[in-house]
Amino acid sequence: MDDNFSNFSVKRQNIRTLSLVVCTLIYLLTGAAVFDSLESPTEDKNRRILLNQIEKFRNNFNMSDVEFERLYKHMIKKGNFNRNSQWEFGGSFYFCTLALALIGYGHSTPNTTIGKLFCIIYILIGIPISLIMFQSVGERLNGFLKYSIKILKTTKIKNFQFKNKSVSNKDLIVAESFLTFVLVLTASYIFSVYEGWSYFDAIYYSFITLTTIGFGDYVPLQKHYYLRKNPIYAAFTILFIMTGLTILASSTNLLVLYLVNINSEEKLRKRMRLKQ
Amino acid sequence: MDDNFSNFSVKRQNIRTLSLVVCTLIYLLTGAAVFDSLESPTEDKNRRILLNQIEKFRNNFNMSDVEFERLYKHMIKKGNFNRNSQWEFGGSFYFCTLALALIGYGHSTPNTTIGKLFCIIYILIGIPISLIMFQSVGERLNGFLKYSIKILKTTKIKNFQFKNKSVSNKDLIVAESFLTFVLVLTASYIFSVYEGWSYFDAIYYSFITLTTIGFGDYVPLQKHYYLRKNPIYAAFTILFIMTGLTILASSTNLLVLYLVNINSEEKLRKRMRLKQ
Ligand SMILES: [K+]
Ligand SMILES: [K+]
Repeated sequence: MDDNFSNFSVKRQNIRTLSLVVCTLIYLLTGAAVFDSLESPTEDKNRRILLNQIEKFRNNFNMSDVEFERLYKHMIKKGNFNRNSQWEFGGSFYFCTLALALIGYGHSTPNTTIGKLFCIIYILIGIPISLIMFQSVGERLNGFLKYSIKILKTTKIKNFQFKNKSVSNKDLIVAESFLTFVLVLTASYIFSVYEGWSYFDAIYYSFITLTTIGFGDYVPLQKHYYLRKNPIYAAFTILFIMTGLTILASSTNLLVLYLVNINSEEKLRKRMRLKQ
Repeated sequence: MDDNFSNFSVKRQNIRTLSLVVCTLIYLLTGAAVFDSLESPTEDKNRRILLNQIEKFRNNFNMSDVEFERLYKHMIKKGNFNRNSQWEFGGSFYFCTLALALIGYGHSTPNTTIGKLFCIIYILIGIPISLIMFQSVGERLNGFLKYSIKILKTTKIKNFQFKNKSVSNKDLIVAESFLTFVLVLTASYIFSVYEGWSYFDAIYYSFITLTTIGFGDYVPLQKHYYLRKNPIYAAFTILFIMTGLTILASSTNLLVLYLVNINSEEKLRKRMRLKQ
């Protein structure tokens, strides 16, 4: 290969990478500034209210600062104050699903050393399996959608019929966005009913979950012993995660194929130019 | 294309997908059983100890059940009891980094409706940017590693010299595994010193973070006002995440290229068979 040309191409790639890094950094700094201005005042206000409440509470019960500190540290901060069992089979299954889906709300985490060790080994083996699984099911979903859209496009409804009967990747992306949209809107409604969240909070929860961020500020199945007493709702919660991530895996699949195609086309063009 | 053959191929793919789903399910069920047996006894014991402590505490302060409930619900469960400000610029930057890296410890999450709304929009735009960025930097890292290994392999050290001087993908994977290994071991040491965690806990933290699960059971920068008072350690924490995820992006890059190659080779073989 022409060394000059290759050098030029590497430089171009370096510039592309560098600008992406700078973009991300600027995006992070901007986000930080906005969140600071949005959340800091409420945080300050809440802290003041809280400290006031604690002050009152301590006065009521004639409790010293040290005693309250002990209460806080030993009884509550350790996060053990869960009336639900988190580690019975249902809870453990929920934990494993959240870990392998990379969501990890963190509402329950192993407390024993052996549990942590097993957790490390479990995810090191399990994450590749689950990623390949989502990827594979996502590919199948793409196939199924392609087939369905094809049927839709070739059916004559009254006098209307699609002119272009081939199914493009754009059609698939539109179908998947539509599916995600419907899934988020309906699932959020169900979550808002069962968990007592506002509809907006349930939508926020759905986004945070399906992006696999999983802050854990909203965690389903923590109330009313749902895990033990309402297996249908519990199954729905896990199915919501699985379905959502599968649809997203389908989109990623299309995107990767698209990028790889662009790459190989670029390489072809390069070769053509070199031959001239 | 031969319809029979295509049918056969789709069936084979369906079987592959189905077996992957079954594998994942079995893996989840097994994990659930193990975690149940590992964690449930400790959980039960801890809950008993805790309820005992609460009982004693309530007796000491002559506090009714309802009053304790109120203390728990209003003052502590809401998770507002953070002495650190989480939403000053440094904390907000930390939050944005964790969100865009899909880690999301959840130690601080937006409390205002407008903050949540901005969060949804912010991550919808930001995640694609950050994914492309990691992908791009990871590609560059691969190039750099290739170059370094090439130099290493062509240098004569005393009388030893590598026979095979070309750099394979296997070499790259080995180099990246080695880098990850060194990063986790050294960073964990630093975390254990600054955060007061045991070395094992710090390694557990590193794994949970670099897999992007981010349970949030261990969160750096929460003690001693580190975010404000120790910017070098704060920068180290964020750099640890960035470096780790970049190395993993490099490996993913190699893996995707490998899988795409396999796929196109399979297609080529299929076409050859069809021509015969
Ligand atoms: K996560
Ligand atoms: K998380």
